[in-house]
Amino acid sequence: MNDFSAELAPFERYFSDLLKFEIRPPATALENFWKGMEYSLFGGGKRFRPLLSLLTAKALGEDPIMVYPLAAAVEMIHTYSLIHDDLPCLDNDEERRGRPTNHRVYGEDMALLAGDALQSLAFFVLAEAYAKHPRAAAVIKAVARAAGPQGMVGGQVLDMLADMEAPGEESLRQIHELKTGALIQVAVTGAALVGEASKAELDSLRLFGEHLGFAFQIADDIQDSHEGETAKNFVGLLGEEKANRLLRAVSEKAFRVLETLKGDTEGLRSLVEFNLSRL
Amino acid sequence: MNDFSAELAPFERYFSDLLKFEIRPPATALENFWKGMEYSLFGGGKRFRPLLSLLTAKALGEDPIMVYPLAAAVEMIHTYSLIHDDLPCLDNDEERRGRPTNHRVYGEDMALLAGDALQSLAFFVLAEAYAKHPRAAAVIKAVARAAGPQGMVGGQVLDMLADMEAPGEESLRQIHELKTGALIQVAVTGAALVGEASKAELDSLRLFGEHLGFAFQIADDIQDSHEGETAKNFVGLLGEEKANRLLRAVSEKAFRVLETLKGDTEGLRSLVEFNLSRL
Repeated sequence: MNDFSAELAPFERYFSDLLKFEIRPPATALENFWKGMEYSLFGGGKRFRPLLSLLTAKALGEDPIMVYPLAAAVEMIHTYSLIHDDLPCLDNDEERRGRPTNHRVYGEDMALLAGDALQSLAFFVLAEAYAKHPRAAAVIKAVARAAGPQGMVGGQVLDMLADMEAPGEESLRQIHELKTGALIQVAVTGAALVGEASKAELDSLRLFGEHLGFAFQIADDIQDSHEGETAKNFVGLLGEEKANRLLRAVSEKAFRVLETLKGDTEGLRSLVEFNLSRL
Repeated sequence: MNDFSAELAPFERYFSDLLKFEIRPPATALENFWKGMEYSLFGGGKRFRPLLSLLTAKALGEDPIMVYPLAAAVEMIHTYSLIHDDLPCLDNDEERRGRPTNHRVYGEDMALLAGDALQSLAFFVLAEAYAKHPRAAAVIKAVARAAGPQGMVGGQVLDMLADMEAPGEESLRQIHELKTGALIQVAVTGAALVGEASKAELDSLRLFGEHLGFAFQIADDIQDSHEGETAKNFVGLLGEEKANRLLRAVSEKAFRVLETLKGDTEGLRSLVEFNLSRL
């Protein structure tokens, strides 16, 4: 997502400083362990979720700097899940984003613990940064729900169970809603909570997050199908024409939700357009 | 710790109800995954950390029911760390508390995810239960710090690094302070925060938690040494006589700290005595 690099540059600096100066303990023996976490945190991720939080803040007329801690926490959770996903007992992947996976560089034991540590750090950052925020508990609760068995991890489990049988459209959608949708959603709704959005704004943004997450999944599936991957995939299930039509319909819904918001929704709109244009 | 079963029984009911009715999502496909988490949560643990929180509440003259969510969260984190510790890529243990380890029953993939999910749930429970509490963020931050690289996970990493060389007394102590001490400490200090303890009470209880955690570690090491295990162990390092003397000195310090508190510290005192008497 090179189009948004101007938005993301200050976040990257915050994220990097956070790790280096704010939360790193002095024990020098742990230096290499922190490096292992950074290896994956700064491993060429697209920063899609942080971007969503920043653009949501903008759409609410808030300073994006307010949502940096949320964006950092959600990215830490996303990163931990990728490290664990790549482990031999799950996907057993050797490469991610063109580099060896974390456990191939730091060992399986350290990779497992790096993932565990990143999850703790995510909640540490939230609790520290929003200590005086009136909705701190609501933000933390939303992120915890999105990360755990009611969200991302629940989706990973459903996904693994679905390996044994071809899922229908309904269950495929449920898997994605939890596995990738929950964290994408909370990047939006969490930012809305941080920005003290009204009930109406929160409802609109929740709906927007839902549509956007779904649209991204369908676009991913269409891209994957061009590389021959169609298992547990909307194209495999519906055929490319129908999947394309679904993508357009869902994106249209996302656009329409944005029209109900008063602020500068240009960024969020471009994100939906970017998703359509990448096919 | 059978002596404290009367204190623990209502907590066990709360803990069990919490999982069954409060936080379990409706997706029936995840039923077995929840069972896997419960297998370890109700796997015959001593509930040492929850007991510490309950007795700390008593020492502050507060109703122990206030600290149930904290006790549940800390026990969830303790349990997740045991599940991950037992995995083949870490300790590769086949049994825990006389039963097959989680991954031997549910598979490595599900055990890894069950641990991940328990950590998220811990923070979910805290954020939900203490949403209206004036020190919610402080409690969550303390637990996150105790769990992550600045606490428990940091200690696990130091412990693994120490496998390569025999640690001295100073580094052995640092390993334990982080690996097991941090979570024991936060069971005490977290309860003090929930009970809105004064600064002086908080300082005393922090010191008490430190001494108690250390005393438990030494007593564990003495027990282990009777079974021939002395690697990375205070008995292996100091000899049994010196280790015994250290245990008594540390317990004495713990007793003296309790004298500075005004409330009913009988329970906390018995815990230190129990630790001395188990040898």
